[in-house]
Amino acid sequence: EEVTKLLALKAQLGEDASSGKFVLKTPKGTRDYNLKQMAIRENVFDTIIKCFKRHGAGTIDTPVFELKETLTNKYGEDSKLIYDLKDQGGEMLSLRYDLTVPFARYMAMNKIQTIKRYHIAKVYRRDNPAMTRGRYREFYQCDIDIAGQYDPMIADAECLRIVYEILSALKLGDFVIKVNDRRMLDGVFAVCGCPDEKFRQACSAVDKLDKLPWEDVKAEMLEKGLTEETADKIGVYVQMSGGQELVEHLLSDKLLMTSKCAMAGLNDIKLLLRYLQIYQLGNKVSFDMSLARGLDYYTGAIFEAVLTGTAVNTNQPRIKGETVGVGSIAGGGRYDNLVGSFDPKGRSVPCVGVSIGVERIFSILEAQLKADGRKTRTNDTEVYVISPQKNFLEERMQIITELWKANIKAEMPYKRNPKLLSQLQTCEERGIPYAVIIASSEKETNTVKLRTIDTREEVSIPRENMVKEIKDRLQICKNNTDQN
Amino acid sequence: EEVTKLLALKAQLGEDASSGKFVLKTPKGTRDYNLKQMAIRENVFDTIIKCFKRHGAGTIDTPVFELKETLTNKYGEDSKLIYDLKDQGGEMLSLRYDLTVPFARYMAMNKIQTIKRYHIAKVYRRDNPAMTRGRYREFYQCDIDIAGQYDPMIADAECLRIVYEILSALKLGDFVIKVNDRRMLDGVFAVCGCPDEKFRQACSAVDKLDKLPWEDVKAEMLEKGLTEETADKIGVYVQMSGGQELVEHLLSDKLLMTSKCAMAGLNDIKLLLRYLQIYQLGNKVSFDMSLARGLDYYTGAIFEAVLTGTAVNTNQPRIKGETVGVGSIAGGGRYDNLVGSFDPKGRSVPCVGVSIGVERIFSILEAQLKADGRKTRTNDTEVYVISPQKNFLEERMQIITELWKANIKAEMPYKRNPKLLSQLQTCEERGIPYAVIIASSEKETNTVKLRTIDTREEVSIPRENMVKEIKDRLQICKNNTDQN
Repeated sequence: EEVTKLLALKAQLGEDASSGKFVLKTPKGTRDYNLKQMAIRENVFDTIIKCFKRHGAGTIDTPVFELKETLTNKYGEDSKLIYDLKDQGGEMLSLRYDLTVPFARYMAMNKIQTIKRYHIAKVYRRDNPAMTRGRYREFYQCDIDIAGQYDPMIADAECLRIVYEILSALKLGDFVIKVNDRRMLDGVFAVCGCPDEKFRQACSAVDKLDKLPWEDVKAEMLEKGLTEETADKIGVYVQMSGGQELVEHLLSDKLLMTSKCAMAGLNDIKLLLRYLQIYQLGNKVSFDMSLARGLDYYTGAIFEAVLTGTAVNTNQPRIKGETVGVGSIAGGGRYDNLVGSFDPKGRSVPCVGVSIGVERIFSILEAQLKADGRKTRTNDTEVYVISPQKNFLEERMQIITELWKANIKAEMPYKRNPKLLSQLQTCEERGIPYAVIIASSEKETNTVKLRTIDTREEVSIPRENMVKEIKDRLQICKNNTDQN
Repeated sequence: EEVTKLLALKAQLGEDASSGKFVLKTPKGTRDYNLKQMAIRENVFDTIIKCFKRHGAGTIDTPVFELKETLTNKYGEDSKLIYDLKDQGGEMLSLRYDLTVPFARYMAMNKIQTIKRYHIAKVYRRDNPAMTRGRYREFYQCDIDIAGQYDPMIADAECLRIVYEILSALKLGDFVIKVNDRRMLDGVFAVCGCPDEKFRQACSAVDKLDKLPWEDVKAEMLEKGLTEETADKIGVYVQMSGGQELVEHLLSDKLLMTSKCAMAGLNDIKLLLRYLQIYQLGNKVSFDMSLARGLDYYTGAIFEAVLTGTAVNTNQPRIKGETVGVGSIAGGGRYDNLVGSFDPKGRSVPCVGVSIGVERIFSILEAQLKADGRKTRTNDTEVYVISPQKNFLEERMQIITELWKANIKAEMPYKRNPKLLSQLQTCEERGIPYAVIIASSEKETNTVKLRTIDTREEVSIPRENMVKEIKDRLQICKNNTDQN
């Protein structure tokens, strides 16, 4: 205590004595991740990255900021949400808004024709934060994209297989993967009499069908200047969903058959559904004609994974019908022209990709853990090296060095003479499974005591067998865990 | 080709037709990491994180920007290198300049008394980039810090053990870890007659002794207003280096004994060297009285790891005596007052930490790989699923689904009917060890061919044994690699 007081005093006197005038907070819409949150985050990333690697992807990284002009004209109205850097002399810079535009810039800049890459990094949006719902101004995106001139729908189907594998592995509850095609939507709008220049507005109205009843969506269409007849016709189509049988039905739809665009989209969806059947996720996929996706750059297949069950029944209130465990959790599609928009000669590279909504996943898993009351370990420590007696610091140091050399994760108290009880408490609090105990009797007989924290069982082990004994026990633990 | 042309045309027409006016580059002083560079980066991080976890550390994360005032008065003159964000309404923000100040802010804000945490993240400095020497405006820092009220030098010694384990594991060549103590330096300045207000200037002159001869450092001291007598006296001390025997010698140095400050530093160094002996890195450590470290916030032990050998003899030119494989590679020290400077009541938490110079490590390893002519794999794919015949896409899809389900890393060409030769070439180029081959004869007999790419050996395997056979072979490979 004496020392703490002195240090505190020193701190107050030292430096600029500016203490107290600081506002101790993170910027609006951002947060720190503490040890527990990071442990969850690492588990999620680990699961996702393993899946990406199982599918042969590598990773790239781009700077957190880009030239301002690289981001210009890419996000429509949302451009106002881009963070700009101050002009401190030199280039005009902005923080990245997503990972797709930097990826396209990278592809064009390096003239890359084929790549399968994932990128997990933070992006920045000066949006109105809704942190209770996991919406931040600094947040992770987690994208995988397959670029190259390939035969239709093979890469697209693999993207959805990847989504399927990840959502299954993370045990987030039931989900459905909706698929549609931008050309399909455009075709529907055209054959129903929607003028070209109103396609985007019609599209954004349709996009709301997952949250609003048809009446409201229709009202919005009328407001935007579509005729009632057109709106009603569109309404019939976009409320359809189904599988291969719906595709067949629409392929022979007299009206739709007049649109080349719609037929091209339909044929690709047919192929996609066929491939997804082989990839064994047929029962998870729904051809949903109301799926529109917000972004402008999609040119073909679009998809969105939606949680339908409630893996967690959290105590968080429903906000506008949203609960933590329900809603969109991944999305993506084909964007064949974006790279070309960066290439001086307009040479494009067809791309398809999907983005996993990791921030929502973190929120769900955090809520799950809270609901379960389970403890999350924030360290991987396997052995704590302790002593019930005074003056055994150097012996503990010798032992821990042996353990580290043998690649055993080990810690010890940073005190000369810590109390036994507090050392054992540390093991329990931190979830450390074993303690190695050294005292005079052990020193005399050249042994150590190995204590299993859970069972409180203690065995005496010759010092020279210590490492092997611990490794054997850890291996048995590991095998048991792997089997579960 | 037809399709490519059409797509390109479409891209030119579509969007804003703004192609060509973009400058395709990353901002000054920044770079993209391509697949190969990322593979190196991941290996380095993997080695480092394994070591951090072996020592029981967890990780936290903080936002990439902080309130501007959080960073104010923390970096002295270097504050001009901080990136500010544009004032877009709301808070004044700056990109983080290091990880230590955000860590201290986090500790104070959450009133944390003890933590062992690592943080690997990018920091930002508007410095003059020297990218050939691995100096960027956006770069990684990789810090581990141990905070808490503990007995002297136990945590400090572990920090150095961590540096030792990491540098050894990365095989960067010979290195030495220099240690000193800020109080020791202050004591030397005091007993040699340097006035208090010139300590910092004297310190920064001494800091150059690793690059300049004593004459030049002395000249700088005189320039800064020290007397020749004082400079010479300081010179005698700061050119000393050694081990425990030097500590003993100085503990009985008549002049130095008059400084409580120097004696406190010396006693801690004595303890540190003793602990490092037990931690088995005695032969790597040098008590080097010229070590000063730039940052203001150190209050006790300071350390720096320096590469001495040349693990690589790269073809890069020496720039001002620097070569890629030589020089400072890690550094740190004790800073007991920084957290207190954020706490409204000045309550401090003693901290010690070390930062691994990962950007230099990337440069060295990249150069090593180039010099060796070794290939770096940018994917982990184990099996490529191919066919020499047309119309086997769906069979390939069935096979690859089985492999993915069995957690085998597998890819296949995204073409309906790829050429056999190009498929085998892909395996060789990408370093994929096995190919599963399916054709009509295999289909009839319900078998597959398993080809080992290296040896070109092919065996026929019943389809139902495929997964097991591949897993067995991969396990053998893995065991062989682990033994090396």
